[in-house]
This record gives sequence, C-alpha cells and structure tokens, in this order.
Amino acid sequence: MSRIRFYNARILTMKDKEITEGELWTDGSAIEYIGAGKPSDRAFDREIDCKGNLLMPGFKNAHTHTAMTFARSLADSANLHDWLYDHIFPIEARLKDEHIYWLSKIGYAEYLAGGITACFDMYFNKEAQARCATDTGIRHVFCGSVNDFGGIDKLEDEFIRFNDYGDLISYKLGFHAEYTTSMENMKIINDIVHKFEAPLFVHISETKAEVDGCRERYGMSPVKLLSEMGMYDFGGGGFHCVWFDDEDMEIFRNRGLWSVFNPCSNLKLASGAAGFKDFIDNGMNIALGTDGAGSNNSLNIFREMFLAACLPNLKVEGGAFVDPFTILKAATTGGALCMGLTDSDVLDEGKNADIIMIDMSNPTMNPVNDIVANLVFSGHPGIVKMTMIAGKILYENGEYKTIDLDEADRMSNKLLGELL
Amino acid sequence: MSRIRFYNARILTMKDKEITEGELWTDGSAIEYIGAGKPSDRAFDREIDCKGNLLMPGFKNAHTHTAMTFARSLADSANLHDWLYDHIFPIEARLKDEHIYWLSKIGYAEYLAGGITACFDMYFNKEAQARCATDTGIRHVFCGSVNDFGGIDKLEDEFIRFNDYGDLISYKLGFHAEYTTSMENMKIINDIVHKFEAPLFVHISETKAEVDGCRERYGMSPVKLLSEMGMYDFGGGGFHCVWFDDEDMEIFRNRGLWSVFNPCSNLKLASGAAGFKDFIDNGMNIALGTDGAGSNNSLNIFREMFLAACLPNLKVEGGAFVDPFTILKAATTGGALCMGLTDSDVLDEGKNADIIMIDMSNPTMNPVNDIVANLVFSGHPGIVKMTMIAGKILYENGEYKTIDLDEADRMSNKLLGELL
Repeated sequence: MSRIRFYNARILTMKDKEITEGELWTDGSAIEYIGAGKPSDRAFDREIDCKGNLLMPGFKNAHTHTAMTFARSLADSANLHDWLYDHIFPIEARLKDEHIYWLSKIGYAEYLAGGITACFDMYFNKEAQARCATDTGIRHVFCGSVNDFGGIDKLEDEFIRFNDYGDLISYKLGFHAEYTTSMENMKIINDIVHKFEAPLFVHISETKAEVDGCRERYGMSPVKLLSEMGMYDFGGGGFHCVWFDDEDMEIFRNRGLWSVFNPCSNLKLASGAAGFKDFIDNGMNIALGTDGAGSNNSLNIFREMFLAACLPNLKVEGGAFVDPFTILKAATTGGALCMGLTDSDVLDEGKNADIIMIDMSNPTMNPVNDIVANLVFSGHPGIVKMTMIAGKILYENGEYKTIDLDEADRMSNKLLGELL
Repeated sequence: MSRIRFYNARILTMKDKEITEGELWTDGSAIEYIGAGKPSDRAFDREIDCKGNLLMPGFKNAHTHTAMTFARSLADSANLHDWLYDHIFPIEARLKDEHIYWLSKIGYAEYLAGGITACFDMYFNKEAQARCATDTGIRHVFCGSVNDFGGIDKLEDEFIRFNDYGDLISYKLGFHAEYTTSMENMKIINDIVHKFEAPLFVHISETKAEVDGCRERYGMSPVKLLSEMGMYDFGGGGFHCVWFDDEDMEIFRNRGLWSVFNPCSNLKLASGAAGFKDFIDNGMNIALGTDGAGSNNSLNIFREMFLAACLPNLKVEGGAFVDPFTILKAATTGGALCMGLTDSDVLDEGKNADIIMIDMSNPTMNPVNDIVANLVFSGHPGIVKMTMIAGKILYENGEYKTIDLDEADRMSNKLLGELL
C-alpha cells in the first residue's frame, strides 16, 4: 500500500471545468486529499513533483473488444457485415484462452499508454481476460457477449462470478446485437435482466442495415423492440447508436439510458456518424469508446473525442461547435457512470485513485490558452505521462510496471501467426 | 558531418509499399546506402540498432501556419470567417519578430516529435521564421502570404532572398486567397509568376462562402478565375480544395496542380470535407497538411491521414475504403513533390536523409498485420522514435537536440500573455 504525494500539480477533477493548482495524495488505493500544500502527519512512500503537469481522472473506454488486437489492420476495406462474417468470425472461432490473454495484454498496454484506466469489454473467454486484467492491474468491466453462436447458457453464471471476482473486475448483462440473437435467446436474456434487476447493454443501431432488418423482422427499431420487451427496465444502454430516430432518442432519454459512441470505428467501417450534437442538446447520457482494434484501428480515446466534437460540424449548417468540456466529460465521468464505476468518475477525496498525468510540456499543449479544449482538439496518447489505477502507478514516462511489453509484443505476434 | 549506420531496421522507402529488412547509412546529409548488411570501408560515427523499428521518409506538412500556435485552443467555436476576423487578424496585427520566432519554435518542436521533417508555411515576419527554422534544423518551404493587408511589395524580394538563404530554406510564390486579395494585387502577383515562371499556391475553395463570393465578384469559381488569369501557367496548387466542382477538378487535373488537404482544420472550422476519394480516383496530385494550430488544433499529420482515409466513407454509399498507401504517399512523397523537395520524397541512395523511425514495439503497432495500414489508421505522434533531417538527428526518444523545450514553452507562454 504505497502512499503517494503529487505536488506542483494542475488538477482537473472533472466535477467542473475549473483547473486548480495544488496537491493530490493517494493512500494506496483511493484519493486521500486534494488541495493546497499542507503538512502530513504520516510519511509518504513517494513524492512526485508534477512540475505543473495536469492530474485528471483516467479515461473510460466505454465500449471495446480488447482482445481483438489480432484484427488490427486486418482486412481494412470492408463494411461491418463483410468484415464480421468474412474475416472476424472465422478467426474468433479459433480463439483459445492463450490468445485472449496475450492479445488482451497488448490492448491493455495501449490503454495504459493512452490514459485509459477502465474498459467496458464485450468478448469471449472471460476467465483468461479476467486473469490478464488482474495481472495488469486495470479496471475491467465485462459486458455479456451472448449471441446465437453461444454464451446464453453462461450468462447468469458469469454475471454472478465476475461481480464477485475482485476489486478491479465487474460485469454487466449484455448481448451482442438483435441481428445476431434470436427472439428465443433475447427472451432468456430478458428473464435474467428481470431476475437480477440489472441494466443491460448491447450493440444497437450501428448500421442502417441492422435497423432496416429489425424493422422487417419485428416492425420496429431495435431500441423500441428492446424497450417494449422490458430489456431496459433496469437501465443500461447501447453501443454505437448511429441510426437513432426521434422515437429511439425519446426512449433513451426517458429511461436515462447510456449512448456509447464509437466514432472512429463507425467512420472506418462506413457505418455512418452518430448524431452526437442532438444527444448532447437533449441532455442525454453519453460516453465514448474505441470499439475493438480491428475496426478502429487504434485504442486511442483522444481521437474519439476529436471526432465526437468535430463531426457534428459536417451536419449542422454553420457549424455545431460542440463544447469540448461536454466531450471530455463523456470520455471520463460519463464512461465511469455508464459502466457502474461510481467511485472512479471524478477526482475527489475517497474516490478511487484512477488518475492520469498529462505532460503539459508537450508542444501540442503549448502555449496554454484552454487546457480542456487542448485535450479534446489536440491530445494524443503521446501526452500521457503517467497512468495510475486504484492507487498503483502502472505506466510512467513510457515504462510499464506490470507489463513486459517485449514479451507481450512477441507473444501476440507469435499467436497471430498461428491464428491466420 | 556525422556518418550513421542504422541496422536491424525495417525500411519503407515509399518508392512502393514493400517493407524490407536491412541497413540504411547516412553520410551527414544524404542517404549513402540502403540494403543488406555489408562491410564499410570507413568508420561510422554512430551505429544504431533499430531492433526492428521502421525507417521511412519524414512526413511533409504541406500546408501550415507554424507560428499560429498562439491561437491553439483560442476561440474554438467559430466558423472560418468569424474566427479570422474577430479573433485572429487583430492579434496578428500585433505580432513581432520575437513572437514569430518563439511561437514557431513550439510548432517545430511539435513537427519533430510527430515525424514531420518539412513544412510548407504561409505566414509573416519571414526573417524571424527563417532564423528559427535554421536554428532548429528543419526543412522549411515558405509560401508567399500576400493579401490586401500587406506583402505585395515584398513578394518578389522574398522569392529571391529565401530561395538563396540556405540548404534548408526555400520559397514558393503564393498569396492568401482570392477573397482577401484585390484583382489589382492578383495581377501584380500574376506578373511575378510569369516573370519567374514559377508555380503558385493559394488557399482555395476552403468554404462555400468563399466560392459563392468569388462567383458573385467574377462570375466563376476561384480555381477557374486563377486558371484563366494565367496564375497557374507554371503549376502550383491550392490549400483545402473543399468546394471543388467538376470543372475545378478538371482544371487541377489537366494542369497537374497539387491539392493540399487539411481535413482536421476543415472539420473543426465547419468548412466541410473535401472529396478526397474523387481526387484519388481521378489520379490527381494530392498532399496533406495540418493547417495552423489555431484551427486544428494540433500539428499531427497522423490525424490528417486517418481523416483523409476515412471521411470518404461518410459520403460514398457502402463505403469508399480508400487505400491507406495512397494516403501515406500523400503525406510523405506527395507533400515533398508539391513543395519542390524532389530530393526528400522517398528513401534512396543520394536522396536527402530526411528520415523518421517508427517505434514498432508500441502497442498500437502490434500485433503486426499491415504496417502501412497501421500507420494510417492507428498512428499518432507518440509512435515516432526519431526524426532526422538532412542527416542530423533532431529528435530521439523524446529528447530534442536543437530545441530547449523548457525555454520554448516558457517563452511562448510569456509572449502569448503579452499578445492577448
């Protein structure tokens, strides 16, 4: 339990957009103190001169498939359907625990280097993934990944097991998507939702074809279908949310559901661009995610922020000019609340010490007019100087504390070679 | 004159998309050898084990206003017109040589850290800028910056002076834009174009309002106007090229003119998105630039590549799926040829040693399916391990050799405070 004092820091708590100067102390897992310098009655294990660098909550990657690093830059010229069915599903059928472990480790390394302290992950082989997350020390929230290919028989057990696995691991009910899941299976999922009175998450309205198909099958949009079935009776939300109509918006707003946007992935797979600005203007709950490395191809939350802030300028005559603080909130606080990480949403005394340090000496942060705008419009993973999760520094000045990057690179490339 | 041997390298010459493994030797300014390992009859000053990292030509930032770092994250919610007239022009009127020097230094630092080895820069106070470029050791191509506010009386002298200034500096004729330059001044510029038989560059068709205004004033698009005046008789090109119609495309293609795209800036200022895919399909000459830090807000060529490759997916039904190598070429070779840097376009024996090293151990580059796709779809400045210009290493593992970053940060912030 290492007690750390950060001093000479700029601090952005994300409770509001103010940036203060002062100190932040951590007690080994939580934030002990934020404020002006003052004497401490106990010794620190380490004192870090921040030299004016910025402390802020870590980014929350609110939709991803971490282990899909195998698909990074594999088959880059396909729409979602062809990419999934021709390239991804056949490889996924061959994935074993060892693949999941090492392919996830590369993903976690990318998260840590890019200031991401928690992810909301939908994938298979969850035991291997939980082991990798625990070895890495990252906060990992599973999302149920049921579809007609499998998972339905394990959903309830997984929900119980991974909500009782360890401090860093939790689990939310979820399934892949309406278009890959039969009504019979959706009804089973719905029963589990009601049994546990738990929120539910799902890929939703990612492509026009998906929404059209659902309308053909059920005479209504996926959002309306799930809502009418009672799937959203205990909250939750959806990933992508690109092709929402007014009624879908209304349902999500009335139920307080989370829309998790993945603008890079949607852009790259030619799925479209979500109506970010409309969601914001309607005061809806929004978060950001990278989606998997196969469709993005990076796990870089800064690029998601830039796109969510700027793509609306293409749609709104004269420019939408989204407030960057709203976007930064979606990428930090919003993601945390969406994933149920209510103790990792902002920097405050007693909250989890899930903190990143931004290098304010980096040229892209200078000269300083507006740090929040800078993070959203200029930021990239290279400005992340330190990443701490649950009070442990896991990444600092380019070095990993819990990951042997050479080994992870070697193993992921070796296993990729066997998979293809 | 430092002779350097890079070994255990992956090498992407950009002559084609092949990546080979081997060695690259530099002789202090140029590339001496690329190929398999072999004995050298002379000693090297330094031998660098690349450990499988990638050597490739540096990126060329083919449109920028480097000194505009003062405007980074200043007034982020304005369209081009309001942003220029209400925020930028009033500050620019107060810029002195000292501002240009230090504000440019921050920009150059960002270029080096992001793998940019040359820039095509349109701004004022060119003596101060040339001094800063020379002190930094970066390859700097000036573009004439005439408009009705000034510059016309200096254009010819500047053209002569900065094409005879030093190895790293050159100058192309240019002016700000049709909408800021009277016909009288355009005619003077046109005379100079013809006197020197020189290519000409200009902001063109950046916004719909600009094109509409030109049609009102002259009954034709800016492209057609300049073409009919003879401005493009000796080549050149335009920056932005967002609102081209078929006739504009035809003129640019027939004359072999360069279209320099700035997707981030256009997106952020709500100017629109250029028809990248149409330009590519028509086999036109294309390059990429960041524009200034005021409108971007970073000087990150990776983000430009991602957007140029992916934004067409929003326009083309079913997806455009632009070939990433075409985009990487625009950002390296294309930029070089556009700027007249015919010895810095690709890696080859006798070419300028303008080389960057990409960190292949970075998680965002692993596991390795397709390095070219990875650079375009996943890359960010944090993966640049080394930047060499004219045979000199200027940036390596986060350290600058010719820039005191602390001093540049301090001076740029001090001067910013005085400007606002």
